[in-house]
Amino acid sequence: MSTKQLLKVETNGKWEQGLKTSISIRDFQPFIVDEPENLGGTDEGPNPVELVLGALSSCTSVMIAFIAKEQKFSYRQVEFKNTGTLDLQGLMGVEGVSPHFQTVSFEVIIKTDETDERTAKLKEAVEKRCPVMNLLLDAGVKVESNWIKR
Amino acid sequence: MSTKQLLKVETNGKWEQGLKTSISIRDFQPFIVDEPENLGGTDEGPNPVELVLGALSSCTSVMIAFIAKEQKFSYRQVEFKNTGTLDLQGLMGVEGVSPHFQTVSFEVIIKTDETDERTAKLKEAVEKRCPVMNLLLDAGVKVESNWIKR
Repeated sequence: MSTKQLLKVETNGKWEQGLKTSISIRDFQPFIVDEPENLGGTDEGPNPVELVLGALSSCTSVMIAFIAKEQKFSYRQVEFKNTGTLDLQGLMGVEGVSPHFQTVSFEVIIKTDETDERTAKLKEAVEKRCPVMNLLLDAGVKVESNWIKR
Repeated sequence: MSTKQLLKVETNGKWEQGLKTSISIRDFQPFIVDEPENLGGTDEGPNPVELVLGALSSCTSVMIAFIAKEQKFSYRQVEFKNTGTLDLQGLMGVEGVSPHFQTVSFEVIIKTDETDERTAKLKEAVEKRCPVMNLLLDAGVKVESNWIKR
């Protein structure tokens, strides 16, 4: 039987005013999360769902680096683009509408001389093991993920 | 029949080196996401799962402001603390272990003169309609949420 290898993470936050919140993580400079003016905020920082998409890209990036090492897969550059769609009716309280992502479209542009087959194998392992990707998938979000080899 | 009110959000990212990624959101200053040294990174920024917890606090903060207005609920201050636990076996590829959060413990400390009953009513609506909270809940994460009135 395998043994759990628990990692504990922690964040703190403080409401500033309006829709604006300051988030503190370990000893890093606290950062502002806000909403754009059209959603009622003062637009002083990214909004919470944008942070989740940023987490998806950075988590995928970590997993690529981590699993590429295991698979002796070499690459020179990776870029990420993602878009997510929410139906605001959900957060406005309309019954039966999920307040979170309806769909996420995710593009990974990777510069590598590896074969298509090995690239597909890396993609498969990354998506199976990436924490943030699996959070979205387990929540029932339709994630359309496309890796482009350059 | 109600009409969808779609919101589209977008982020971009670029792998920097090692486990480090730069994330760009709209016109804001790009920020670094990394991993601590004990997880193989160079510790130049929060890690992806910490970002998700920061998103949970800031999303809850937005929803409190938004729904408090609907419910004419007044408050003076809100602070957030959360911790999440992951089993690293999941991202290491052990079958049957989820790579994302096993549990999240979330504390909301709110300064208000409103009654316990009205505070509980606000909490209920916030948690039902908050995008990031529902992403975690729909993914099967056990979220233990505790609001403390001060």
